[in-house]
Amino acid sequence: MTAKRVAVIGAGPSGLAQLRAFQSAAEKGAEIPEIVCFEKQANWGGLWNYTWRTGLDQYGEPVHGSMYRYLWSNGPKEGLEFADYSFEEHFGKQIASYPPRAVLFDYIEGRVNKAGVRKWIRFETAVRMVTWNEETKKFTVTVQDLPKDHCYSEEFDNVIVASGHFSTPNVPEFPGFDRFNGRILHAHDFRDAREFAGKDVLLIGTSYSAEDIGSQCWKYGAKSVTNSYRTAPMGFKWPDNWEERPLLEKVEINTATFKDGSTKRIDAIILCTGYKHHFPFLPDDLRLRTANRLATADLYKGVAYVHNPAMFYIGMQDQWFTFNMFDAQAWWARDVILGRVKLPATKQEMVADVQDRVAREDAGKDTHDAIEYQGDYVKELIAETDYPSFNVDGANAAFFEWKEHKKKGIMEFRNHSYRSVITGTMAPPHHTPWKDALDDSLESYLQTASSVAAE
Amino acid sequence: MTAKRVAVIGAGPSGLAQLRAFQSAAEKGAEIPEIVCFEKQANWGGLWNYTWRTGLDQYGEPVHGSMYRYLWSNGPKEGLEFADYSFEEHFGKQIASYPPRAVLFDYIEGRVNKAGVRKWIRFETAVRMVTWNEETKKFTVTVQDLPKDHCYSEEFDNVIVASGHFSTPNVPEFPGFDRFNGRILHAHDFRDAREFAGKDVLLIGTSYSAEDIGSQCWKYGAKSVTNSYRTAPMGFKWPDNWEERPLLEKVEINTATFKDGSTKRIDAIILCTGYKHHFPFLPDDLRLRTANRLATADLYKGVAYVHNPAMFYIGMQDQWFTFNMFDAQAWWARDVILGRVKLPATKQEMVADVQDRVAREDAGKDTHDAIEYQGDYVKELIAETDYPSFNVDGANAAFFEWKEHKKKGIMEFRNHSYRSVITGTMAPPHHTPWKDALDDSLESYLQTASSVAAE
Ligand SMILES: Cc1cc2nc3c(=O)[nH]c(=O)nc-3n(C[C@H](O)[C@H](O)[C@H](O)COP(=O)(O)OP(=O)(O)OC[C@H]3O[C@@H](n4cnc5c(N)ncnc54)[C@H](O)[C@@H]3O)c2cc1C
Ligand SMILES: Cc1cc2nc3c(=O)[nH]c(=O)nc-3n(C[C@H](O)[C@H](O)[C@H](O)COP(=O)(O)OP(=O)(O)OC[C@H]3O[C@@H](n4cnc5c(N)ncnc54)[C@H](O)[C@@H]3O)c2cc1C
Ligand SMILES: NC(=O)c1ccc[n+]([C@@H]2O[C@H](COP(=O)([O-])OP(=O)(O)OC[C@H]3O[C@@H](n4cnc5c(N)ncnc54)[C@H](OP(=O)(O)O)[C@@H]3O)[C@@H](O)[C@H]2O)c1
Ligand SMILES: NC(=O)c1ccc[n+]([C@@H]2O[C@H](COP(=O)([O-])OP(=O)(O)OC[C@H]3O[C@@H](n4cnc5c(N)ncnc54)[C@H](OP(=O)(O)O)[C@@H]3O)[C@@H](O)[C@H]2O)c1
Repeated sequence: MTAKRVAVIGAGPSGLAQLRAFQSAAEKGAEIPEIVCFEKQANWGGLWNYTWRTGLDQYGEPVHGSMYRYLWSNGPKEGLEFADYSFEEHFGKQIASYPPRAVLFDYIEGRVNKAGVRKWIRFETAVRMVTWNEETKKFTVTVQDLPKDHCYSEEFDNVIVASGHFSTPNVPEFPGFDRFNGRILHAHDFRDAREFAGKDVLLIGTSYSAEDIGSQCWKYGAKSVTNSYRTAPMGFKWPDNWEERPLLEKVEINTATFKDGSTKRIDAIILCTGYKHHFPFLPDDLRLRTANRLATADLYKGVAYVHNPAMFYIGMQDQWFTFNMFDAQAWWARDVILGRVKLPATKQEMVADVQDRVAREDAGKDTHDAIEYQGDYVKELIAETDYPSFNVDGANAAFFEWKEHKKKGIMEFRNHSYRSVITGTMAPPHHTPWKDALDDSLESYLQTASSVAAE
Repeated sequence: MTAKRVAVIGAGPSGLAQLRAFQSAAEKGAEIPEIVCFEKQANWGGLWNYTWRTGLDQYGEPVHGSMYRYLWSNGPKEGLEFADYSFEEHFGKQIASYPPRAVLFDYIEGRVNKAGVRKWIRFETAVRMVTWNEETKKFTVTVQDLPKDHCYSEEFDNVIVASGHFSTPNVPEFPGFDRFNGRILHAHDFRDAREFAGKDVLLIGTSYSAEDIGSQCWKYGAKSVTNSYRTAPMGFKWPDNWEERPLLEKVEINTATFKDGSTKRIDAIILCTGYKHHFPFLPDDLRLRTANRLATADLYKGVAYVHNPAMFYIGMQDQWFTFNMFDAQAWWARDVILGRVKLPATKQEMVADVQDRVAREDAGKDTHDAIEYQGDYVKELIAETDYPSFNVDGANAAFFEWKEHKKKGIMEFRNHSYRSVITGTMAPPHHTPWKDALDDSLESYLQTASSVAAE
């Protein structure tokens, strides 16, 4: 048997989980396939690799990054901690619960540096096309080495798509956008809240981007924040200069009109209207088409593509759980490829599994059920591999508490702390309340309350 | 012989010239191949099809548009008039010389509506990949129907690439960009000058985008405009609140530092640093790699790809001449495909032609020579086909005058008029000086001085 070859598309948290999964098996003595990871950015970390760029990058590729300056984790880090690499192992101490972007990037990088998998990654290499040959049972992956401006193709036995799904913006149009006298952007292109200081900002949408970008604008000095909702208002206790309005109907010059007939003067519109699963490098027979939900379409166990289970998708679900769920999926995909986990004999069985997941998600009543549903999913996958098992119910509990903390104070929830489900240690409170912490650097975050007081 | 099939990629002015070229031959009784034009936008007109969108569009495709609100032609329309469809034919009268975008869009559309070629265009269809089969001597073109989210492939005898080269921004990075407290954008993403009213705007670059976007910002109320040059300042007589500085060295918070050590407070940075030829849908053997210049690399007669002359590129040159040059190229490519024009027998001869063009361009001393060089090129192509010949020297003369008018008054040059080289009619002056004409609509532009006075 000639050595198998596995292509991993993307070196964000999901792709890196896949590399770490294979490296972990090799470390324990298993024979593993040749792994080639294609990453279009110059560094790993996916969305966590911050860039000031928007639109198209220096090679004309769509900019992947949707993160912005001053972004802090929007959920407690206790819900995403790697079971094989704790925050305490990485930082040499327990840290506060809502780290800024740079701190989480450092943590993500710490594990894969330790694993030594960087050598498997071909950076600045964009995947252009993947095709499947039914006769040879192989994939042809066509890529472009961007700095060399050189295209080439290679064959693989498996392809693992880990290209993320929060990078291609969903950008609806509203009447008057073509004549509005101010800036219109999607959350994907939002970078620095200070640009909006002194402005009347209108946000469309009511999910995490709307909540967090609005909070950033408020924190860094926007004159007012208005949220426009399609389904229902978020209903948090907002600061005085923040209000929620029904859906935008139209804009004229600098005036927004809402469904209830009310109007408001606005300077800028930020569309926090979510993202699309987008795979321009995949033909019809290989391309996942799914809504952003917990039970994705067409993925057996949320991972193996039912129409061609030599292909896997990691991290394609909507996400309560993130890093640890990607790990659970990556370990499971690895074990299918290593022959340790068997797929059902028929496509029908795989399709039935998907239908069952969809039905169970649909039966849930609220976010509490949704969190438990995804927690159960993580447990299910972990049980089938050697990924270190951890207290998933404890992580669920952290999410439930977080929800309550947000209800109590939307500008204060990040001041709370939770207990690690990996090491059992309680997180210390952060030295400065989130709303007053304007410096989001790693150095600032890792200071302790006493060292800050001593300054 | 089975009917030939020709794929045209893009329905901007170049692609439309190609469709009109074939239709014109058919109208005169020639047998023409089956023509399929793939256009990723929902309408034709290329860059002239304005969109408020930036970054990625509603399908996740890079937004093609680089044009902005209030854009007026930056050269006299007498330099670009179609030889087979005059402004007077379209508007029923002669119009002023620097039409706004909407007026030129209307004119472009008028000719192809009359020709009835819209049926050949598959809109909202993005070309994903083109490959060449050396055995069958056919191209396989793989496209995605965007609204249907459906990929398919078809075979063609010829491929004509008319996808433009002013859509993929060249975006250099300067130290401090990742921490600058304001907006950084490329000209490609510039849309509404009013966003910059009251702001101190810094523009990098000294070519047409820098000049015109700066002028727009000035016209619509920017507090100050600063141009930073790499090679040399533009040297026009700028308004008082506009100055030129050496190249940017770095930015810190809101301060720009230039190569001469001087500093300036700035709110926003607009990179007017040009565009890249970018063909993510072409593999190495078919992909044009050229600088933005008059004598492009690897194109015989500036049109046929020397490495595979079944493939043509229209409009890939830097442009003094535009619409009429695309026409000249399209008629010529058509005639090669129809067997009316013969390509040289060897690749060597085609390569020698390219080398000769490069040498002749390099021998030119100034923009005067460059204009004549491109005028000669247009004459050369027209002489080989039945495209209506016109007074190219007259068009050159309009360009020379335009240059002088710009030197005299950079905010006034658009108030001048020139004589049509197609109909011989002198253009009327516009009813309002450019700097006071805030309404760029077609309706406003087509009014006459007397009708405006009567209002
Ligand atoms: C604004 C924002 C804030 C977020 N905040 C949090 C948070 O606080 N906590 C949390 O847990 N999660 C957060 N998330 C969720 C986020 O999805 C995950 O944390 C994580 O980044 C997903 O990892 P991924 O590897 O699946 O995808 P990504 O991080 O998106 O990585 C995908 C990688 O694939 C590469 N790629 C894509 N296409 C190609 C191609 N054609 N060729 C080669 N490479 C390609 C990309 O360059 C990228 O590196 C946030 C998401 C967004 C949008
Ligand atoms: C800001 C700006 C202002 C300008 N102003 C003037 C002016 O005043 N006067 C003038 O004469 N010229 C002007 N130009 C020059 C301009 O290049 C030409 O006028 C003209 O638009 C070029 O036509 P084209 O068809 O070659 O390219 P484009 O107009 O760029 O059209 C290319 C077409 O190809 C399509 N396409 C691209 N990729 C794909 C794909 N993969 N699949 C399917 N379709 C695809 C695009 O959607 C587009 O419709 C300006 C250019 C810019 C950037
Ligand atoms: N760390 C952080 O602080 C942070 C910050 C931002 C984002 N994130 C993460 O980023 C991911 C994406 O979050 P997201 O908020 O961008 O997307 P999302 O959760 O998918 O939410 C999309 C929102 O857009 C609305 N919407 C969609 N189309 C619309 C239309 N045509 N008109 C009006 N409203 C429309 C939806 O409204 P309906 O409810 O009516 O459908 C919904 O409110 C999440 O994983 C989130 O956790 C994290
Ligand atoms: N109708 C209109 O009014 C209008 C408006 C805008 C544009 N256009 C058209 O659009 C097309 C493109 O024009 P353009 O001005 O965008 O591009 P361009 O003509 O290619 O000019 C690029 C400019 O960027 C500079 N540059 C490139 N890289 C740089 C770097 N790393 N650092 C500093 N400077 C750098 C160049 O400087 P150097 O000289 O030092 O190389 C040059 O000044 C033209 O056809 C133009 O006619 C028309």
